[in-house]
Amino acid sequence: MPKLQLTQNARPATVTVDALNELGESVPTLIAGEHPLTLYLDKREIVTLMTLGAAPEALVLGYLRNQRLVTNIDDIAAVQVDWETDSAAVTTHAGGQDIEALLERRTVTSGCGQGTMFGDLMEDIDNIVLPDAGSLDAATLAILLDNVRLHESIYKQAGAVHGCALASAEGEILMFIEDVGRHNAVDAIAGLMWLDDMGGGDKIFYTTGRLTSEMVIKTAQMGIPILVSRSGLTGMGHAIAQKVGMTMIGRAQGKHYLLFTGQQRFKPGAA
Amino acid sequence: MPKLQLTQNARPATVTVDALNELGESVPTLIAGEHPLTLYLDKREIVTLMTLGAAPEALVLGYLRNQRLVTNIDDIAAVQVDWETDSAAVTTHAGGQDIEALLERRTVTSGCGQGTMFGDLMEDIDNIVLPDAGSLDAATLAILLDNVRLHESIYKQAGAVHGCALASAEGEILMFIEDVGRHNAVDAIAGLMWLDDMGGGDKIFYTTGRLTSEMVIKTAQMGIPILVSRSGLTGMGHAIAQKVGMTMIGRAQGKHYLLFTGQQRFKPGAA
Repeated sequence: MPKLQLTQNARPATVTVDALNELGESVPTLIAGEHPLTLYLDKREIVTLMTLGAAPEALVLGYLRNQRLVTNIDDIAAVQVDWETDSAAVTTHAGGQDIEALLERRTVTSGCGQGTMFGDLMEDIDNIVLPDAGSLDAATLAILLDNVRLHESIYKQAGAVHGCALASAEGEILMFIEDVGRHNAVDAIAGLMWLDDMGGGDKIFYTTGRLTSEMVIKTAQMGIPILVSRSGLTGMGHAIAQKVGMTMIGRAQGKHYLLFTGQQRFKPGAA
Repeated sequence: MPKLQLTQNARPATVTVDALNELGESVPTLIAGEHPLTLYLDKREIVTLMTLGAAPEALVLGYLRNQRLVTNIDDIAAVQVDWETDSAAVTTHAGGQDIEALLERRTVTSGCGQGTMFGDLMEDIDNIVLPDAGSLDAATLAILLDNVRLHESIYKQAGAVHGCALASAEGEILMFIEDVGRHNAVDAIAGLMWLDDMGGGDKIFYTTGRLTSEMVIKTAQMGIPILVSRSGLTGMGHAIAQKVGMTMIGRAQGKHYLLFTGQQRFKPGAA
């Protein structure tokens, strides 16, 4: 497999600004960076993402993957992120001949990517079958949560970011991404998995963010059968997890958690 | 002014699902609803929003306003939300003759609404001048935070939602909206302000969500000079607030807060 060309242009994650607290004291405060990154696919402008910029190349790859604008990573020749122009240029071997048709379809259908995306995603869900294998016990969940706590660097310093982790079946963290947008963080993980040609069937996905429909759908698209969050969930997130047979755990913090769906993969006893 | 026709189709905010806790006990758990709502403007599909559905008519109006797809509420004849088809049909008096051109421009420019939106927003920011008037003292901030606490019904029950409030200069809450998306909550407030023909110059905007660029831009677009959040902020949110001269307070909880920008409107002494 010919490797694609990739810049490595992560940005500094935080900046320090002055604030005044309730006592009138000046408090230098670390805050998370947020930068526009305009994605061009074969010179065609696709979208502007607002990102922390910690893993911009993985983010744009994951975005293209999850939006199904590119179906095979081997089709991509290069990803070049340039912060002087706030742009990410992705070039394909085919040189964009299929992209016009894809974008045409998106705009004709709805006038806006968001709308079509939703319809496409829901169609996808009907075709996803998560592997029956994969399991999690309470002790491994505790290990995972502890590992996440050690990884969260930007959140602890500056807040205002969400973190996502891809973990092994043993709760070991394989990838960890923080971003100002929760969807960016999951897209960046999808990009890293694509680059490493890594499947999701024997993995656990962790997010600090809420388990909304889109989060559950993206986890299912990555083929990951177990999803864990520190936060709560929505009715639609719950319904989709149930439909695809995902094991979904919310409000996981410290020793506490709530198992919402997919009990067959979870062993509560071993804590 | 001829009043527009408006359905009042709020959805029940929560559903109860069963969960298993760490002790293996079954725990009936209240979770926030999340529903797709596809917006049609003069029969043209615009976008699918994922929403709690507490104020769907205000949400679609605010979305059209903030996306600048409709510039004057008097142009709108009716908003009809129908949850059997998960749709919101907005009809204008002009019958959509301008919309094709607007959508055309969006799609030609970027192939996706999100990208163009960002460029448009940043252009807008150059033209926004917030009123010098408006002020906030620490005592009023405390009153506002207390009022917010009393309003947060869905968050307290089910989590997984963000709340936005429009408050008077005295910290009295005029409008309060919770939604699964933080952008939906602010769009719905913009819609309610539009319906009431209410200006923002003498108001305070509160959000439970993070102060990212888009949140600051939308507050500025509503002409509101003071923005308060329980959460943190991003570098770009900070930069834009500074540029438009907004008074921005983050991490406001209990007796604590951090004043980041626009010190001229804030009086710390009066607490």
